[in-house]
Amino acid sequence: MPEIIEQASGAIKSESRISSNGYAAFQAAGALGPFQFDRRNPGPHDVMMDILYCGVCHSDLHFIRNDWGMSIYPLVPGHEIVGRVTKVGEHVTKFKEGDLAGIGCLVDSCRTCDHCKDGLEQYCERGSVFTYSGLEKDGVSVTYGGYSNNIVCDESFVLKVSDKLSLPNVAPLLCAGITTYSPLRHWKVGKGQKVGIVGLGGLGHMAVKFAVSFGADVTVLSTSPGKKEDALHLGAHNFAVTTEEDTVKSLAGTFDFILDTVSAKHDYNMYMSMLKTDGVMVLVGLPVANVEVPPFALIFNRRSVAGSLIGGIAETQEMLDYCAENNITSDIELIDMKDINHAFERMERNDVKYRFVIDIATL
Amino acid sequence: MPEIIEQASGAIKSESRISSNGYAAFQAAGALGPFQFDRRNPGPHDVMMDILYCGVCHSDLHFIRNDWGMSIYPLVPGHEIVGRVTKVGEHVTKFKEGDLAGIGCLVDSCRTCDHCKDGLEQYCERGSVFTYSGLEKDGVSVTYGGYSNNIVCDESFVLKVSDKLSLPNVAPLLCAGITTYSPLRHWKVGKGQKVGIVGLGGLGHMAVKFAVSFGADVTVLSTSPGKKEDALHLGAHNFAVTTEEDTVKSLAGTFDFILDTVSAKHDYNMYMSMLKTDGVMVLVGLPVANVEVPPFALIFNRRSVAGSLIGGIAETQEMLDYCAENNITSDIELIDMKDINHAFERMERNDVKYRFVIDIATL
Repeated sequence: MPEIIEQASGAIKSESRISSNGYAAFQAAGALGPFQFDRRNPGPHDVMMDILYCGVCHSDLHFIRNDWGMSIYPLVPGHEIVGRVTKVGEHVTKFKEGDLAGIGCLVDSCRTCDHCKDGLEQYCERGSVFTYSGLEKDGVSVTYGGYSNNIVCDESFVLKVSDKLSLPNVAPLLCAGITTYSPLRHWKVGKGQKVGIVGLGGLGHMAVKFAVSFGADVTVLSTSPGKKEDALHLGAHNFAVTTEEDTVKSLAGTFDFILDTVSAKHDYNMYMSMLKTDGVMVLVGLPVANVEVPPFALIFNRRSVAGSLIGGIAETQEMLDYCAENNITSDIELIDMKDINHAFERMERNDVKYRFVIDIATL
Repeated sequence: MPEIIEQASGAIKSESRISSNGYAAFQAAGALGPFQFDRRNPGPHDVMMDILYCGVCHSDLHFIRNDWGMSIYPLVPGHEIVGRVTKVGEHVTKFKEGDLAGIGCLVDSCRTCDHCKDGLEQYCERGSVFTYSGLEKDGVSVTYGGYSNNIVCDESFVLKVSDKLSLPNVAPLLCAGITTYSPLRHWKVGKGQKVGIVGLGGLGHMAVKFAVSFGADVTVLSTSPGKKEDALHLGAHNFAVTTEEDTVKSLAGTFDFILDTVSAKHDYNMYMSMLKTDGVMVLVGLPVANVEVPPFALIFNRRSVAGSLIGGIAETQEMLDYCAENNITSDIELIDMKDINHAFERMERNDVKYRFVIDIATL
């Protein structure tokens, strides 16, 4: 009977809706402003929570601008959500009222394909349901994200959040955290390995923390010499300025693994040359331009270029638990909701260390 | 003392040289013609052999034309060499006079770096010595390939060849064979996996034979509908014409592994779309143009693009032994030495099934 239960949980029930306040973009490239909307009344498998903090991801800006051609307006961004459970459906087993909880980039998936069964809901063969600017499985209900005061979600896509860590600093783990944790785990990065992290932003600074925590020898690869002190402070063992030709040459064949967190167009070939034989470069940023690499760079050292998208629900929980055990959180700047448009301007200038997080109490 | 022995083996001894007859290119884009040269007298670790057959690889043409900017003229091509041992040095243990033997793309490497120790001589950190148009480790002696009547090589780079198989058909295994065998083994292609082979030439037809032999479900991906019968005859389970839009769409997310044997510029993105989540596309052809793939195609299904170069010496022996056990050889057309220039013309038109092999007795 799971199909029927899912439908009951996911379908719109117009007779009883939850009122929500948030901030939305109303058109591509427009500023965000206050927006009132409603969410479904929690079904038997749903968790309702008051949102306390929501991280500001670079993807939010891409969606606001419709850079990827899949935006639905009004668009309430936000997929780095932490809050407190206020109500649970009758069949909910994982959560009770008052629990801390989190929601990341996904709020549903088909749950029946091989990927979903394998805990890879992000690669759901029928398409997973994104936390905002997505369509629920009914094909019509638009999803609204965490720049808002509450949210309703099937418990299967809600994460347990420890009370050991500073809650605002946990929020970015739900996207920036899992996006970097997952490929480092998948490609078994650890002791005895040399790892390069390209870019030191929201994703990059989490990648440094995880790779260091996993025991790798970590080098931050950056075009900004000024980031050296911060990189070392975050735990990186080395810092290299990639605009210096001699530095790049000296790094030839150095790294087992490079995690590229940059979403602007850039030169991949330079990084390929830094990989050892059998080295892997994994992209987690989403540049619009093609990745271009010379076949020789791949063939002459059996190198790989790969990509990785966030992580599945079980792995996201594993990451949150790992962070609680190892005292890992994101470095953030807490902002008021009304300052979101200014925050986006600063984010575009890379003027943030390393993630803006919205204090939803300021809504 | 290995360093001293190596030097004794590799150095030029002007007082006693072996006279060789072959065919050489004398300038880029020029036709091949007869060429007399000499080789070193076999040292204590060397094997000398009479060459019986030599395969004609597409790389030979690239080198003749200096497409890769590393050609040394006069240039005697040929790195798919089989023959019979005529003399062995006093410290040679693997071979004796009269043995069948083979030489592939490599005749030496540093033998001390991690890759050499791991049996990955093709990725030697100091640069392996190519069978032709290379420099021996003395830095001055040019190597000459198998379009010739004899060759001298350290026994460590000479392969044992079974007498169970047709010798002319074994020759292409030394490059086309190992180039396709190695990545299929490295990425553990086998039962339960769907594999796509792009291109049905010298490399592609060997890839089909190996992938089928390893138990995979094999589809040949080709732009030529006329190759269907041949593909199925070679053992492929399916054949797909990649110029048909509906066919390409129907193959979306189908393959665990794609081996791309094409060295002309082509669209990689189409093949990326055919990979499953965690699927890998491996290039073994060497196009001059960059590989271009959209980051979305990598990221949204954790796909990889990689490259692979021939194989190490131990793996080449493993491949030859596997072929002898499983009755696998190359489909060839035997030609006379004097017809080599015409053979290159036909090769450029893909008018060969699937490899020309020179009968060196016709020299």
